[in-house]
Amino acid sequence: MDTVITSPHNPQIKRLMKLRTGKNRRKNEQFLIDGVREISRAMNFGIPISTLFLDSAFVTPKKQQENKEFQELMKRTREKHLPVCEVSTPVFLKIVFGNRNEGVVALAEPPDRTLDSLELPRIPMIAVIENIEKPGNLGAIFRSADGAGLNAVIVTPEKTDLFHPHTIRSSLGTVFRPNAAVADAEETIRWLISRKIQIVTAKCDSTKPHTETDFTLPTAIVLGSEAEGLTPRWNRTEICAVKIPMLGIADSLNVSTAAAVLFYEARRQRTG
Amino acid sequence: MDTVITSPHNPQIKRLMKLRTGKNRRKNEQFLIDGVREISRAMNFGIPISTLFLDSAFVTPKKQQENKEFQELMKRTREKHLPVCEVSTPVFLKIVFGNRNEGVVALAEPPDRTLDSLELPRIPMIAVIENIEKPGNLGAIFRSADGAGLNAVIVTPEKTDLFHPHTIRSSLGTVFRPNAAVADAEETIRWLISRKIQIVTAKCDSTKPHTETDFTLPTAIVLGSEAEGLTPRWNRTEICAVKIPMLGIADSLNVSTAAAVLFYEARRQRTG
Repeated sequence: MDTVITSPHNPQIKRLMKLRTGKNRRKNEQFLIDGVREISRAMNFGIPISTLFLDSAFVTPKKQQENKEFQELMKRTREKHLPVCEVSTPVFLKIVFGNRNEGVVALAEPPDRTLDSLELPRIPMIAVIENIEKPGNLGAIFRSADGAGLNAVIVTPEKTDLFHPHTIRSSLGTVFRPNAAVADAEETIRWLISRKIQIVTAKCDSTKPHTETDFTLPTAIVLGSEAEGLTPRWNRTEICAVKIPMLGIADSLNVSTAAAVLFYEARRQRTG
Repeated sequence: MDTVITSPHNPQIKRLMKLRTGKNRRKNEQFLIDGVREISRAMNFGIPISTLFLDSAFVTPKKQQENKEFQELMKRTREKHLPVCEVSTPVFLKIVFGNRNEGVVALAEPPDRTLDSLELPRIPMIAVIENIEKPGNLGAIFRSADGAGLNAVIVTPEKTDLFHPHTIRSSLGTVFRPNAAVADAEETIRWLISRKIQIVTAKCDSTKPHTETDFTLPTAIVLGSEAEGLTPRWNRTEICAVKIPMLGIADSLNVSTAAAVLFYEARRQRTG
């Protein structure tokens, strides 16, 4: 251990606590990662991690033996010579998110996530997520995109915080994959058109069922916010709107379930 | 207005507040419905509603004119001669769930939801939901089942509260549809087999992709809990396990997104 912290008034602890708001994450260009699996995945994908904070209750041989994943993470941390900071449990509980304490929190820096950094195959399948407000929905969309084998997820910057603790958790760490980009919607439209990638928007008022779209072409599937759907900038003649048939009384699906239905229909067509 | 309540110590208000726990909902056989749309849908589906509680701030001609749905609900309430109870805003905020106040809460009784009450077509498509723990997931599954036109949703009684406020809200009121049943898993298996309905379980460790199942047969799609999946009682030779292909780093989807993917694949096969 490099240092040990037992006071909740320690300035470093205070700085960490502030990172629980999106405003401070943006201002400081830092964020926290909770959970053994999530931190491991962040490391796998090269997210810059500056320090690991450990709950001292977890720094016992018995505790560590119980949890192979925790052990493995500690081993990698030593190999990478990452600074580790042990804190007392009461102090740790001030920096950990929610009530799931796995004994470790990582301080990380947001990686560059630009359109130009995306590496795409010849016939890509991409998701574009505009103005999603609930971090849990955004995370679930990343998880489904990962599952369905999408090549990239592009997120518009307004309202959306890629590294909100809920997004990280509900994504199971898939939000750390490098095939993500944050880009303005207009820029994204131009970028997609210039690459001859067809744009398929999900809209409740479309008449074309999603299953009648040819997803074997290079495709971007675009989904809008929970309350408002997509902004009017996606209403263009060269953009195709589809709807998921709604056969009951509700007029739409939850946005993260709609995303999964579309991603897996695309995957089915490409496999079949 | 039949009565007006301004004291938070009013015994009726205290009873309502207690209904925010599942234990008291079961004990009293009563639950609360928040939101204009949700209450309207409960009425449409014949859920027994005993009293409507109104926030007095909403009982003004101006407020009511603003909201056509609220107006419509009040009209139906008068036609049905339902008791209405006006309460002051501070008292109302004690009974309303979360921070979405639409000015009205209904006191309702859970309807009978048994397997025998289900009305099924000749080739039914059914969902069976075992031990789902998060009410928000259960509600989202009802919403997707409604959207994909499933004929019934069967829920096992353990851990699951059909009328948790989060379930009601995330279902958009589709949880009130009469094609729902609460039944023990063993009873459900016997019931499905006796009706020659094929049972398709969603399992991460299956090797059969979900798209290779014939959903045009009478089918029950079975999903298990977020953390544990399905219990071993579903491991039988006559039960077919399928998996949704996971092509990335995560080994499963969120259960409500998995449900939607399966429901819509079944719907696609039946439409196509």
